Amino acid sequence: MEGASVHYIEQNLLPFSFRIGQSVTFEESCRVIRSMNVRGAGAIGALAGFAMAQAASVAPEAEYHDFLSRAKATIESTRPTARNLFHAVDLVFQAALVSREEAIRSATEIADTDARDSRLIGEYGAQLLRNEMNIETHCNAGWLAFVDYGTALSPIYHAHQQGKNLFVYVDETRPRGQGARLTAWELFHEGIPHAIIPDNAGAYFMSLGKVDLMIVGADRVAANGDVANKIGTLEKAIAARAYGIPFYVAAPTSTFDPSCADGSQIPIEFRDESEILFQEGLTDDGRKETIRVCSPGSTALNPAFDVTPARFITGIITEKGIITPSPENIQSITT
Amino acid sequence: MEGASVHYIEQNLLPFSFRIGQSVTFEESCRVIRSMNVRGAGAIGALAGFAMAQAASVAPEAEYHDFLSRAKATIESTRPTARNLFHAVDLVFQAALVSREEAIRSATEIADTDARDSRLIGEYGAQLLRNEMNIETHCNAGWLAFVDYGTALSPIYHAHQQGKNLFVYVDETRPRGQGARLTAWELFHEGIPHAIIPDNAGAYFMSLGKVDLMIVGADRVAANGDVANKIGTLEKAIAARAYGIPFYVAAPTSTFDPSCADGSQIPIEFRDESEILFQEGLTDDGRKETIRVCSPGSTALNPAFDVTPARFITGIITEKGIITPSPENIQSITT
Repeated sequence: MEGASVHYIEQNLLPFSFRIGQSVTFEESCRVIRSMNVRGAGAIGALAGFAMAQAASVAPEAEYHDFLSRAKATIESTRPTARNLFHAVDLVFQAALVSREEAIRSATEIADTDARDSRLIGEYGAQLLRNEMNIETHCNAGWLAFVDYGTALSPIYHAHQQGKNLFVYVDETRPRGQGARLTAWELFHEGIPHAIIPDNAGAYFMSLGKVDLMIVGADRVAANGDVANKIGTLEKAIAARAYGIPFYVAAPTSTFDPSCADGSQIPIEFRDESEILFQEGLTDDGRKETIRVCSPGSTALNPAFDVTPARFITGIITEKGIITPSPENIQSITT
Repeated sequence: MEGASVHYIEQNLLPFSFRIGQSVTFEESCRVIRSMNVRGAGAIGALAGFAMAQAASVAPEAEYHDFLSRAKATIESTRPTARNLFHAVDLVFQAALVSREEAIRSATEIADTDARDSRLIGEYGAQLLRNEMNIETHCNAGWLAFVDYGTALSPIYHAHQQGKNLFVYVDETRPRGQGARLTAWELFHEGIPHAIIPDNAGAYFMSLGKVDLMIVGADRVAANGDVANKIGTLEKAIAARAYGIPFYVAAPTSTFDPSCADGSQIPIEFRDESEILFQEGLTDDGRKETIRVCSPGSTALNPAFDVTPARFITGIITEKGIITPSPENIQSITT
């Protein structure tokens, strides 16, 4: 954040072009989150915090509290599942009640904490990764999805820097293709060997013994260890269990929501069916084009997340260490 | 088949246009199978049989047997996993050794038998479907994939005709989208309520109790009941088991391969990575366009099938009735 302006990577343009966008109002920041131009647990949280600070900076003195409350509700309505969003908005709202400067300080601290947490997750998680391991990941929980490093990819980056040879199976992650577009882009630029696979192929490679470990991110962790994450995570966790493959979730404690007793209480966002019926990409001659890929006349259902029960999760890699997902462990780590 | 000419639906044009193609040589028929312009277990088998008959009709008298043997090998090389292909080519090859007329008669009989088997599968399978059931299916095993009716969809068509209200969750089936393009197209034109879902969402809807039963087709059934089918089938079967949802495979006995002891002996076709990296579809103004949907620089792995172990399969719906997949049941049904 510089002045009133928040800088962000326009993720909807990736992997075909890289551009830094600017948002100068909290309404604009909301649109950026809603359109998923900024997506990923930590990145959403950071931008939501800055949006709250932007709101504080323009809130009229006469109705300061009411204005902030309405802005808070607007920001919270952008993505219902993402815990980091609510976490950040709460913190910055409280800070804004003290002063506008305090709001900016709080939002900046959230972003800095996110980067530090991601680094620590990488350090802890890298201990799980041995040389020559094959790792599968779903969606994008890399540095694009956070302020830096990421969660699921942070252990991979750290292990790679430690000289370990790794191979990553990247689930393409339909419908929006965050694996095929963002994770693949990150890994390619980090020089980490990988291949994109259709989401359908996860269990197949597991059944061949080609996946040693799976790591994913999280959008919300309930008090009992159930995890909401990108649609398809549940299926991978079940398959990993069937083949005895360790299944790890990487998430900072800011993603934990002790007020959610279990996964059934996490609201699941349904997005527009157009994300399934149409696909966007690049033509041969470099034009962006949107094409229909489904049969006309049919509708589609587009749940953006699913809930993986704690029993399918081997461990959660946090900035405070790796825990097995139990109510006791989660209580002790979040208090 | 009319004279030397075999008529087929150009499935690669669907769902955006419907056209009947003609193949007048066995080499052309091979290209049609290889390009997946004709795909689906039964349709591949039927066209492969006709291709063998086409080869017989042009085999020079002097090297009749050698020519036929080479043609057989060529046809068999088009799709390594599909059992019906080998079954049909074997039968028509033997018939061609008797006479050219016998080859055509045999190929025609294979196609007619396929349609009859599919109808019987529909009648048996419809008994499993109760009014108001929600059914999930993967890939396309409808009438497009066979000579008529199909396998996985045939019970749904029969139950629908019996007046049962059904709702079908259609897995889009990346990378080629046979669910989103072909199954959705079939169901829409039959007036059967359905929605396309990302492959990632299968387990999610199962976890909500929204899927009562799953039916898929098969490309090869091994002697122990292991089933090769479209990539992603394995993942659904594992998820269905985790939620106690009956998982049925629908396949005629011509798809059974008693010479394969178990699934590990079924060759799995890997197709070109371009099927994942690029997507074909229709632009707003009705042009066909191919676009890149993955990050440039990254490669992809494209296994076309996977193997679902018999233990995950509730039953196999055949033209002779519904069996639980065990070596004994399969032996008795195939001999």
